[in-house]
Amino acid sequence: MISRDEILKILSKYDEHGLKIATICSHSALQIFHGARMEGLETLGIALPSTKPYYESFSLAKPDDFIIVEDYRKILREDLQKRLIEENALIIPHGSFVEYVGAGNILEKFYVPMFGNRLTLYWESDRERQYEWIMEAGLPHPKRYYSPEEIDKLVIVKLCGAKGGSGYFKTSSTSEFYSKIAELRRKKIIGEDSGYIIEEFIPGVRLYPHFFFSPIREPNLISLPYGSLEILGMDRRLEVIDEIHRGLPETIEDFLDFTVVGNTPVVVREKLIIDILEMSSKIIQASRKLFHPGLIGPFCIEVMYHPEKGFKIFEISTRIVAGTNLYPYGSPYSYYYYNEPMSMGRRIAREIKEAIKIGKLGELVY
Amino acid sequence: MISRDEILKILSKYDEHGLKIATICSHSALQIFHGARMEGLETLGIALPSTKPYYESFSLAKPDDFIIVEDYRKILREDLQKRLIEENALIIPHGSFVEYVGAGNILEKFYVPMFGNRLTLYWESDRERQYEWIMEAGLPHPKRYYSPEEIDKLVIVKLCGAKGGSGYFKTSSTSEFYSKIAELRRKKIIGEDSGYIIEEFIPGVRLYPHFFFSPIREPNLISLPYGSLEILGMDRRLEVIDEIHRGLPETIEDFLDFTVVGNTPVVVREKLIIDILEMSSKIIQASRKLFHPGLIGPFCIEVMYHPEKGFKIFEISTRIVAGTNLYPYGSPYSYYYYNEPMSMGRRIAREIKEAIKIGKLGELVY
Amino acid sequence: MISRDEILKILSKYDEHGLKIATICSHSALQIFHGARMEGLETLGIALPSTKPYYESFSLAKPDDFIIVEDYRKILREDLQKRLIEENALIIPHGSFVEYVGAGNILEKFYVPMFGNRLTLYWESDRERQYEWIMEAGLPHPKRYYSPEEIDKLVIVKLCGAKGGSGYFKTSSTSEFYSKIAELRRKKIIGEDSGYIIEEFIPGVRLYPHFFFSPIREPNLISLPYGSLEILGMDRRLEVIDEIHRGLPETIEDFLDFTVVGNTPVVVREKLIIDILEMSSKIIQASRKLFHPGLIGPFCIEVMYHPEKGFKIFEISTRIVAGTNLYPYGSPYSYYYYNEPMSMGRRIAREIKEAIKIGKLGELVY
Repeated sequence: MISRDEILKILSKYDEHGLKIATICSHSALQIFHGARMEGLETLGIALPSTKPYYESFSLAKPDDFIIVEDYRKILREDLQKRLIEENALIIPHGSFVEYVGAGNILEKFYVPMFGNRLTLYWESDRERQYEWIMEAGLPHPKRYYSPEEIDKLVIVKLCGAKGGSGYFKTSSTSEFYSKIAELRRKKIIGEDSGYIIEEFIPGVRLYPHFFFSPIREPNLISLPYGSLEILGMDRRLEVIDEIHRGLPETIEDFLDFTVVGNTPVVVREKLIIDILEMSSKIIQASRKLFHPGLIGPFCIEVMYHPEKGFKIFEISTRIVAGTNLYPYGSPYSYYYYNEPMSMGRRIAREIKEAIKIGKLGELVY
Repeated sequence: MISRDEILKILSKYDEHGLKIATICSHSALQIFHGARMEGLETLGIALPSTKPYYESFSLAKPDDFIIVEDYRKILREDLQKRLIEENALIIPHGSFVEYVGAGNILEKFYVPMFGNRLTLYWESDRERQYEWIMEAGLPHPKRYYSPEEIDKLVIVKLCGAKGGSGYFKTSSTSEFYSKIAELRRKKIIGEDSGYIIEEFIPGVRLYPHFFFSPIREPNLISLPYGSLEILGMDRRLEVIDEIHRGLPETIEDFLDFTVVGNTPVVVREKLIIDILEMSSKIIQASRKLFHPGLIGPFCIEVMYHPEKGFKIFEISTRIVAGTNLYPYGSPYSYYYYNEPMSMGRRIAREIKEAIKIGKLGELVY
Repeated sequence: MISRDEILKILSKYDEHGLKIATICSHSALQIFHGARMEGLETLGIALPSTKPYYESFSLAKPDDFIIVEDYRKILREDLQKRLIEENALIIPHGSFVEYVGAGNILEKFYVPMFGNRLTLYWESDRERQYEWIMEAGLPHPKRYYSPEEIDKLVIVKLCGAKGGSGYFKTSSTSEFYSKIAELRRKKIIGEDSGYIIEEFIPGVRLYPHFFFSPIREPNLISLPYGSLEILGMDRRLEVIDEIHRGLPETIEDFLDFTVVGNTPVVVREKLIIDILEMSSKIIQASRKLFHPGLIGPFCIEVMYHPEKGFKIFEISTRIVAGTNLYPYGSPYSYYYYNEPMSMGRRIAREIKEAIKIGKLGELVY
């Protein structure tokens, strides 16, 4: 694994005033570039030949410059890494960045400085480690079943072998579990020895609040002894299952697809914001214990709320999430902190500018 | 019941230029404080020890000062009322304020001046009186059944004994009605002698438009002979039932929970805005007849629309509703009146400022 | 059919600096007037006596002046057309304008200059021609069935005889098709000889992206050799069926009603924006071939996305759609082009102003 010292050594040679915000042209890149522009920072887009012209058409969200690759994994090539470093590029990782380049490759082979703590990739990418993190934070979460024989009520089965959002099914008995797994194997949707995780099915309302944690600002919450925590937005993810009432054929394949197609805006009862801020501050503190200095910058917790059962946390996304694309000009929450349009992309750029000003950029980078 | 004269006498001793916008830190308090700040008014938050730090973390929405109580009902204590009055506090009531302090307590024991007509508490808090109000306004509403024996199609049963949003079930026959009531009693969800209201079930799309009625501005609608009516936003409420397609267990308990978890934005067909404005102006006129001077300030009507059956009105909320939290920086409707961000919280503060300027604050207070 | 030359001759007599943005007070008129005001253009509302006062109540979205008619079709009257022309009125057509006045009437009898290419009315109003357009663009679309005997899986049947959004049903077999048609005829919902179109039912997420195509600006997309294409927003339509989980009676009548009641905001995965821009640029190019100079100004494509099956395009709306009413102060996409609030209504006004400035208004009008 590339050490933080190695990355900070590379960063130390950067011309901070010529710093370029760089990312792959996908996921939330328009917002990231748009936000950087609003803060007066230069931008660099890593694009495919086919996507470049579309990004260029967004006059205020296009990057100042492009690096064109045939395939995103190519940015691991030595010459391209060298170029990114020479251009003073600071990578803003997003979900597609990690998906296309690979968490392992980033940890082992990608020497370009990244905004945030790249150790989150290690802790987030594996379901077991993510679970350990939630446990360390002491937050309520769905019950885990360690064997299909234990299934005693409705559970959700998360398949480790299947791609992206497609690896889920529901069942309420051991025998049904085995028959569904057999069907999926027969149809080659999963491999013969694919793993799975079985979790209690939680009824309730899904909510995806977005946060920004600044380790360099003054503390703003008693429950967090250092840094400042802001809730900058909230969304709900839109998946094919949300159209099921319009006549989706009820075949097993369709039920399995939980790919996020889009996002819709939501605000939560104000009383619950308190709980949400409390949970997220515990996530930050646990991260500090597990992988010092812990979470930095944007993250999202994926929660389910039920009026009688309270909150359960399902997952942590340790970087800018696509739901923030709803709010390139501010969200119903961001205006409680900023009297100007503050997207997550702009907030990242603002943090970088503030850090450069006080000579603390290294604290935000790994 | 405390008379309006008593309240106005207390208000008459206020230093209007030192007026403080005060409310309980819950529900829509962030928006109320944020709006007051935008209008340059001072703010005072009534908070619990546990919620204060979270409110303080919102740099532009935190109140200027706090009164800390162990329990919100404590603000009925003589010393705290005295302090609020000495601080020139004008209470902005919201749903949680009424829930925590109690409508009866506010009417009988709370002497601090409140924005709006506190008689709305009397008219809104009882289902029968609210029904009388809708009838007085002559608006279409769901049919009432006065006996379970009359049930001849799908009805919704609203339980008076159950808490909050949890007291509902649906049935389509007299026998099913009795068996569901028996089940609820057996499970102690309702008491042996809890009352209920039976209403026709109306299919259609739920909409919650938000209004502000100013009695001090020039009339802006022919259908309203006095005051100005604005539609400042619209939302849809998000409840657990809206996730039913994701596998909510279909038990009677879950079906009964209609607690609002959050709100999502919506706009309605422009043609229907006309109907909505017409209905709300009738609600205002009826309120003037039933409890002079009637509704003042923010309110919401809860309607169901069906393309073939038109609108039916279900409920009136006579104060700022949580759905307005979607729009702290303006809504798709507010910009048709204001070329600046106008939340409901800010609109309230704006009204207070305008009234002070022309010496009419008393007309907005009870 | 009125020729473009005839319209341009009338336009040539206009005082362009006294131009008035005119439309019927319905659909998206508030946004159109509000946008024109922001651009400093004068406005003229065509209203019914009953709707005028409500439009007047919107201080920043009311038209500067009104023409009152008893019935919208009356604007075909010679004296009213003469008055509109004398007032230098440029009509912005919207869905209700076309519905109330009639596509055929507009093409044959309405001499007032309109923004955009009125030939789109001819190409859009007929399902067969619209289908030809989508085929010409080479875009994926639902499979058509030319006979009920061919039905081999779930299909959606679009009834040509039924009004507005009400003419749809789903079926999966030939025999069920005939029994449903018989029921609809027996209930007089459709006539004995009403036509129908049978299309493959596509599961997926519905999305309605809104575009503005400017033929007078510099090209901004390689895939479009002329003009500039912007995605200015996206919505989802809200219909009664979206409340089905709340207990909508499952009768055939209710299922048939697809009238749009409102719109809700959405953003799509950034990766899919590329596909959406590519599809819409093909729609523009096909329109240029089929009816020169093709699409001008605002339009919307109605698409379904399924993670495994990609996009299918259902329909094209060749004018401002009601979903744009969500964004009178800018959308999550508009800010990537404009650092100021840019609604579709304002974009139209901006285009007109730019065209006047460079002497090219005629290129936008028919």
